[in-house]
Amino acid sequence: MKEQSMAELHVVPLGTKTTGVSHYVAAVIDTIKQAQDIKYQLTPMGTIIQGPLDRIFELTQKVHEVPFTMGAQRVLTSISIDDRRDKLGTMEGKMKSVESKLKS
Amino acid sequence: MKEQSMAELHVVPLGTKTTGVSHYVAAVIDTIKQAQDIKYQLTPMGTIIQGPLDRIFELTQKVHEVPFTMGAQRVLTSISIDDRRDKLGTMEGKMKSVESKLKS
Amino acid sequence: MKEQSMAELHVVPLGTKTTGVSHYVAAVIDTIKQAQDIKYQLTPMGTIIQGPLDRIFELTQKVHEVPFTMGAQRVLTSISIDDRRDKLGTMEGKMKSVESKLKS
Amino acid sequence: MKEQSMAELHVVPLGTKTTGVSHYVAAVIDTIKQAQDIKYQLTPMGTIIQGPLDRIFELTQKVHEVPFTMGAQRVLTSISIDDRRDKLGTMEGKMKSVESKLKS
Repeated sequence: MKEQSMAELHVVPLGTKTTGVSHYVAAVIDTIKQAQDIKYQLTPMGTIIQGPLDRIFELTQKVHEVPFTMGAQRVLTSISIDDRRDKLGTMEGKMKSVESKLKS
Repeated sequence: MKEQSMAELHVVPLGTKTTGVSHYVAAVIDTIKQAQDIKYQLTPMGTIIQGPLDRIFELTQKVHEVPFTMGAQRVLTSISIDDRRDKLGTMEGKMKSVESKLKS
Repeated sequence: MKEQSMAELHVVPLGTKTTGVSHYVAAVIDTIKQAQDIKYQLTPMGTIIQGPLDRIFELTQKVHEVPFTMGAQRVLTSISIDDRRDKLGTMEGKMKSVESKLKS
Repeated sequence: MKEQSMAELHVVPLGTKTTGVSHYVAAVIDTIKQAQDIKYQLTPMGTIIQGPLDRIFELTQKVHEVPFTMGAQRVLTSISIDDRRDKLGTMEGKMKSVESKLKS
C-alpha cells in the first residue's frame, strides 16, 4: 500500500435557516464517496478520511465548495491531518493499537 | 433521556520519546469508560462522548490530567462540543439523519 | 505567578439565519472580560485565554451558554488547551520564543 | 482586492523528545512569510493566514512538510477555514466588527 495519511474533516455552513445541517453533510459524504484512493468513515462529529496526502488536500478543497453550491454563503471547513512517516498509518492500525492497550 | 450534548475529545502529549502515543490514548479511554452518564465511541482520530454538559466538562478536565500522571510534561487537549437544544442530540440520531440523506 | 495554561476558544452558533455572528462573539468577549484570573487576546479566528486550568474550564462552560441566552438553538464550542508543566507558559513567552527563532 | 478567505493553521510535531517546539514553529512561519498573496498573523496558539483559497491550501500542504525536513517523524497539521462569500472577509474587518459591538 502507498503512503497513507489520515485526516478528520468537518464542514459546517453558517447562517442557515435551520439548526439541522445534515443535508449539507450528506452532500459532502456523497462527494467523498466518489473520491479516488480515499477510504472514509463517517462519525457522529465529522468524517475521517485516509489516503495519499495530495488526494486529501484535493478532496478537502472540493468538499469545501459543496455547501456553497447548495446556497450557503459562509462555510467553516477544518481538516486535521495526522501524518506518520515512521510506519504505515491506517485507520484499522490506529484503532487496534489503542484497543490492544485497554485494561479490559 | 436527560439533556444530552455531544463532544469530540483529543488528548495529545508533546515531547514524548516515541512518535507512538497509543498507550496514553488507551489510558484516556480507560478513564472515559469509568465516567458516569457518559457514552463514548473511539474513532481513529479521537473519542466522541455523549452525556450531560457538566459531565462532559468534568470528564475533559479529568482526562487532561491522565498523560501528566504517566510522565508527560506537555499536553494538548481539545474538546469540541455540539450542543443542540431544539431537539435531543444523540450519536445514533446524528448518524441516521445524515445516512438517510445519502444518495445511495 | 500561579500555574498558567493557555487555551484557544471558539464559540459558533448554527442556524442563525444571518451569516454574520459578530454580536454573539462580542457577547462572549464581554463575558470573558469579566472572568477572574483570566488574560485574553481576541484574534480574527477566536479568542486566546490564559489562566489557571480550573478557571479556563469554568469560563468555557460559561461562555458556551452565552449564544443560547441570545436565542441560538445550536452552539458549537471548542476549547484547545496547551498545558506545559515543565515551565511557566504565558502568551508573551510563547510569542517571544518563536519570534527569537525567526530568520529575519 | 480579490476574494479572500481566512484560516487558522496549527502544525505540531509529535515524538520530538523535548516539550518545546518553537524552532519548528519558527520554520513554519519563515515559510509562510515567503508565500505569495498571503497575509499572516502569529498568535500564541497558531497562525492566522488570509488570502485566496487555493493559495491557502497550497501553503498548508507546504508548511506541513516543514517539520519532516527538520527530522520529525509524525506531524499533526490542522487548518480551519472561515470562508464568507456574501462580503469580503478580512482579518481587520472581522476584528472591527466584533470590537464595535463590545459593551465597553
